[in-house]
Amino acid sequence: MAKTDAFLPYFWLTWSDDLLTKNELTALQQFIGIQDWLTTAEKKQLYTSIDITAPPSRDTLVDWKSRIHQTLAQHPRIGSLFDLAFELSGRDSGVQKAQNDFLQLAQTLGLLDGEVLKEFQSPHQTRTSSHETIHRFDIGKMTERLDAETATATQRVKSILSTIPFEYHDDRDIDAYREKVYEWCKLLANEQLGSIAYPKAYGGQDDVASYFAVMEALSYHDLSLVIKFGVQFGLWGMSVQLLGTEKHHQKYLKDIGTLKLPGCFAMTETHHGSNVKGLETTATYDHQSQTFTVHTPHPGAQKEYIGNAAKHGRMATVFAKLLVNGTDYGVNAFVVPLRDAQGQTLPGIAIGDCGPKMGLNGVDNGTIRFDQVVIPKENMLDRFARINDLGGFESDIPSDNRRFFTMLGTLVGGRIGIPRSALSAAKSGLAIAIKYGDTRRQFGPDGGSETPILNYRVHQRRLLIPLAHAYAHHFALSHLTDCFLQRSEEDQQQIEALAAGMKAMTTWFARDALQECREACGGKGYLSENRIDALKNDTEIYTTFEGDNTVLMQLVAKNRLAEFRKKFGEMDASDMIGYVWDKTKTALTEKNPIARRNTTDAHLLDPLFHLQAFRYREHHLLESAAKRLKRLIDDGMDAYDAFNVAQHQMLAVARAFLERVILEQFQAAVSKTKDKKCQAAMENLCKLYALSQIETNKGWYLEADYMEGAKTKAIRKMVNQLCWELRPDAVPLAEAFAIPDALLAAPIATKP
Amino acid sequence: MAKTDAFLPYFWLTWSDDLLTKNELTALQQFIGIQDWLTTAEKKQLYTSIDITAPPSRDTLVDWKSRIHQTLAQHPRIGSLFDLAFELSGRDSGVQKAQNDFLQLAQTLGLLDGEVLKEFQSPHQTRTSSHETIHRFDIGKMTERLDAETATATQRVKSILSTIPFEYHDDRDIDAYREKVYEWCKLLANEQLGSIAYPKAYGGQDDVASYFAVMEALSYHDLSLVIKFGVQFGLWGMSVQLLGTEKHHQKYLKDIGTLKLPGCFAMTETHHGSNVKGLETTATYDHQSQTFTVHTPHPGAQKEYIGNAAKHGRMATVFAKLLVNGTDYGVNAFVVPLRDAQGQTLPGIAIGDCGPKMGLNGVDNGTIRFDQVVIPKENMLDRFARINDLGGFESDIPSDNRRFFTMLGTLVGGRIGIPRSALSAAKSGLAIAIKYGDTRRQFGPDGGSETPILNYRVHQRRLLIPLAHAYAHHFALSHLTDCFLQRSEEDQQQIEALAAGMKAMTTWFARDALQECREACGGKGYLSENRIDALKNDTEIYTTFEGDNTVLMQLVAKNRLAEFRKKFGEMDASDMIGYVWDKTKTALTEKNPIARRNTTDAHLLDPLFHLQAFRYREHHLLESAAKRLKRLIDDGMDAYDAFNVAQHQMLAVARAFLERVILEQFQAAVSKTKDKKCQAAMENLCKLYALSQIETNKGWYLEADYMEGAKTKAIRKMVNQLCWELRPDAVPLAEAFAIPDALLAAPIATKP
Repeated sequence: MAKTDAFLPYFWLTWSDDLLTKNELTALQQFIGIQDWLTTAEKKQLYTSIDITAPPSRDTLVDWKSRIHQTLAQHPRIGSLFDLAFELSGRDSGVQKAQNDFLQLAQTLGLLDGEVLKEFQSPHQTRTSSHETIHRFDIGKMTERLDAETATATQRVKSILSTIPFEYHDDRDIDAYREKVYEWCKLLANEQLGSIAYPKAYGGQDDVASYFAVMEALSYHDLSLVIKFGVQFGLWGMSVQLLGTEKHHQKYLKDIGTLKLPGCFAMTETHHGSNVKGLETTATYDHQSQTFTVHTPHPGAQKEYIGNAAKHGRMATVFAKLLVNGTDYGVNAFVVPLRDAQGQTLPGIAIGDCGPKMGLNGVDNGTIRFDQVVIPKENMLDRFARINDLGGFESDIPSDNRRFFTMLGTLVGGRIGIPRSALSAAKSGLAIAIKYGDTRRQFGPDGGSETPILNYRVHQRRLLIPLAHAYAHHFALSHLTDCFLQRSEEDQQQIEALAAGMKAMTTWFARDALQECREACGGKGYLSENRIDALKNDTEIYTTFEGDNTVLMQLVAKNRLAEFRKKFGEMDASDMIGYVWDKTKTALTEKNPIARRNTTDAHLLDPLFHLQAFRYREHHLLESAAKRLKRLIDDGMDAYDAFNVAQHQMLAVARAFLERVILEQFQAAVSKTKDKKCQAAMENLCKLYALSQIETNKGWYLEADYMEGAKTKAIRKMVNQLCWELRPDAVPLAEAFAIPDALLAAPIATKP
Repeated sequence: MAKTDAFLPYFWLTWSDDLLTKNELTALQQFIGIQDWLTTAEKKQLYTSIDITAPPSRDTLVDWKSRIHQTLAQHPRIGSLFDLAFELSGRDSGVQKAQNDFLQLAQTLGLLDGEVLKEFQSPHQTRTSSHETIHRFDIGKMTERLDAETATATQRVKSILSTIPFEYHDDRDIDAYREKVYEWCKLLANEQLGSIAYPKAYGGQDDVASYFAVMEALSYHDLSLVIKFGVQFGLWGMSVQLLGTEKHHQKYLKDIGTLKLPGCFAMTETHHGSNVKGLETTATYDHQSQTFTVHTPHPGAQKEYIGNAAKHGRMATVFAKLLVNGTDYGVNAFVVPLRDAQGQTLPGIAIGDCGPKMGLNGVDNGTIRFDQVVIPKENMLDRFARINDLGGFESDIPSDNRRFFTMLGTLVGGRIGIPRSALSAAKSGLAIAIKYGDTRRQFGPDGGSETPILNYRVHQRRLLIPLAHAYAHHFALSHLTDCFLQRSEEDQQQIEALAAGMKAMTTWFARDALQECREACGGKGYLSENRIDALKNDTEIYTTFEGDNTVLMQLVAKNRLAEFRKKFGEMDASDMIGYVWDKTKTALTEKNPIARRNTTDAHLLDPLFHLQAFRYREHHLLESAAKRLKRLIDDGMDAYDAFNVAQHQMLAVARAFLERVILEQFQAAVSKTKDKKCQAAMENLCKLYALSQIETNKGWYLEADYMEGAKTKAIRKMVNQLCWELRPDAVPLAEAFAIPDALLAAPIATKP
């Protein structure tokens, strides 16, 4: 032990740390040079230890470190780097006098006491590394809460899918994969799952609620199967059921339900996807022959992306402009045969194959062109419009525009099935990534064992916030389904808007969640065997089909605006006073200086605060968008231009509306949960959902002066804190989705 | 013409609009009921037109509409719905008296004058629909500006790739695809592109700058080829060159450059990906036999994801813990033969196939296990450490930790090649989506022709902001490359941090941009033929390999913190005064009330304002993260826990640093651009980059009180405005990437 030993920790750190550089050696040299308690010989000796041209040997470094270790072991109360240096020097008085210089040296080298001392200490436990999964609620009860009334159908589907015939199939040989998916569809049809929503008279069970549960449960398996199933029994079958009449039901429905009659839903054309009102396929009526001639006037008017078309479809519901005696009666629907019973394409029908896609390669999407294809008069799906016996056009809905949207409106069920399917895929991804994060260890405290990556705060944010959102979307979609099942004609437009909006919100959520899951699983997430590949790529198109999300969100916004205008239009003076009073009340209770900067835990975690904040944002955005549009148009701008100028704002209007609905439904679900332990976990999830959304929108809240910076900062911390607190529940919460291992299938999530 | 005709537009709208409902009919009935200028007979007649049980016929609706049209045509100055009603009524005095009632009615029905009138007017042009591509600068000159000094290498690679042997190959048959990619690699090696960076003595051209340009240009083609090429000539070759010595260069380098000796870079293990310091493969030295025995102690220690391993690699640079006489000398690198010249796996080597992946299926990633594989002493890559003649360990770098990071540091080039490759992929995606957006038409003003979707504001935000970012990243990566090529030892750590950070930022950017491109192309973007599939899925793993982005960003943050601490440590009193003065100046010039709410165009578009805002954010985040960490550790928290608590903030520190570097480099590039027209377009892009980033971070700026809400709102509008102004340049700016049609290949972007 010599007084020069005071330098050992500084030397050791300088030579071993990968962030220190030559500059540090220079700093040490200068420091040594000015210490008058060192002799020239001592200085010379010290200089040799920091000579860049002749570094100490590895053994010297090992020796230094072991001496430091010993000293720390002998003096467990050493609390700072200087204390350590002082002990190493044998409590030398010169060292003691130089204390300030040593402190300055540590600063120059950028060393932090606590951080550095840990490096020298023995392996130790930390809060971070000791966090782990705890079972604090009954997983089975949580599953019951999620599955609710349709648990039976869900269970049944999961059991069927867990049997050997449904083992996953290689998706790279497209032809074989398509056949496999078709076979799977037949097996499901044999189980009478395809016709479950059809009337009992046609082999069904009249059980629309279970149909949605089936779609949801199927989506824990191969998503090509879900889409093929949806095309056949949903789009093709339901278009016949809902746009056709008795004669069509009689003729087709039973065979559709058994998959004896595979068919397509041929709406989209190459040139018209979102703007379906502009479809160009024509159906020209000829009264003499009592037939329609279906025709594709140019290649851009071919049907495109049509599921079941490339291989298996024998018929299609074709949407085409109806022409009678030269008059265009807008888009109507017709049943058109495509192939004979042997699978041969019929005359006049030309079918193309869309070829390989990013995902869903088990679905045979194709193009269809019609060359003067003649079909009998009865093939018009004539629930909403028909040709009468005199050859004239007849409809209860006089406006072509309105009639077309009424027809589309009957098909709104698709916009419920799709987000429920997307959510299942997101749940699968989250279950895989969360289970992997719970077991995968990487890095750790110096000398300690490695830590499960789910213990890292950023990893928690990446997976637990989406987990909270998955629960939130689950209950919002249950609500949407209930609204749909119990709808009256009066609700139709509200439900259509809600379905369009939830379709967009949930499919976007699935896209983002699966992206996070992929990255959170690192290289393992890139291997197809772990299924995030298929989950992400198969659901990728969910944001586009059944209505492009951006277009749908504009529809939602327009609906909100129309509602808003009417509400104002209908207001009489006393309503107006009420409205102003409401706004004043908000100003008094929410937007006052105390509320704006209230950062107490009780307030930040208060569900009422969350809901008020969501509602405020919704109303404020809607009102300002309405005002802005009115101002632009009043100032002479073309309405079409005005909507374009405000397009970004319109999307925000729709988003805020849907976020509020989702929160409301999640909160309602929490309060209706009977099991107290499940309720407690859900409550935390719900708070995390709410606060993470507020955090996402904090720019808006600050702009609107609804919150001050101190509050949004406190919310960020609270989000981190909630993630930390929910971490032990993460695996049980993912397991509550009850995805059978046979379906989850990812080795990183199912193998020990 | 009768006074009751005043109602025609209201009736027509009620029956035809798809958003109006039964309520509106009731409102109309009530309205009619209280009009005393109507006779009972007239009211009765009007009621029949709005009877929901007996709607008017379609012909009636058509008749109404044509009468409305005629009236508008005859009276072109009609400017409101009421004016129209008044004219239709034959300027009836009763109608005139009821004007206020009519206005109220329009409100009740939620009708906006301007919007409604357009519906009745003939097809018209709008600002939105008439926007289009304009050539305002010379595309060739812009390409020259982008390619700069390495234009020759870039050109050459593009020409080679445009020849027939490089036609795209089906990626679904994995075996065939891997062979095709291997063949392509040979063709490139024959063109002496593989060895371009190697010393001339070993068949190379000593041209590292061109090597990066080659990687960048190759990335406009198949990305499996790029990665296979990078594994062989970059990882395998450069590890031999940079970690080995003369004897290794002599023995291997030439054959690596010609692809006579295909090899691997075997670092990652199943249990250690990010934390490579923890690798568990061992290399045990035996002095008697002068050999190392390489061994995989357990399955978790197998090498995983190793490119070139599953099929073609004959040797590998293997990273393993060196054990000499029972002492662990940390991770070192060794050349280990895997296969003989016939491709047979050698004894003791067990190779697995990683199987299908999300993308890059032309690369044969595999696992490698070593069962006591003996290699001669000279196979240790011994530039940084070696076994001396006495059998002892020797190194100029005494610390195992530091030595390992020095070795890794020499391989930093990979973190330059990867983001440059990712950026090329993003450019391809943007070129495809922007060209499609310019020609794809959907929706339009009522009665007018459909509008190119790139004219919609939200579509512009989705594609033009990423386009601006692509240019920004391009110049930042050029800067990084230059720093690397001109580095001195002193810069090494800064360059490593910058490379790690840019790798993360650019690969995340590519991920997001390609996601937007996919959605922006709708169904067409989902078809593999349009290449966004491959671009997205192949680059998906870029955020993980060569260092997980989240981990890298933490390294960057730690580097920034260390720099910050040292800067403070080294400050003497006068520096400190300077620092305080700098902060005060910021407060005076940037954070004063006038600047905080300055929303003039001149200020918002001022590059100095942008740079100041970026710098302020960078410094403020760094300082507060440093303070927070110090406080947590001073308060007794374990340093490891403290870094975990502040992890989210650390990522923000790194991001803000990199955003500032990117902006700085883009601004510098703009000012160095000689062609005035190119410069003008780049200037707009640079402003869009800067303001869109500030918009993204507006929550932070508002929290920090650096800007007020009025200013962030003005910035949002300015971003929209810049997008609108750049829209005509979008296609030329994408064409300046000069991606040959043969490589871009997407039918939606290359076929008329």
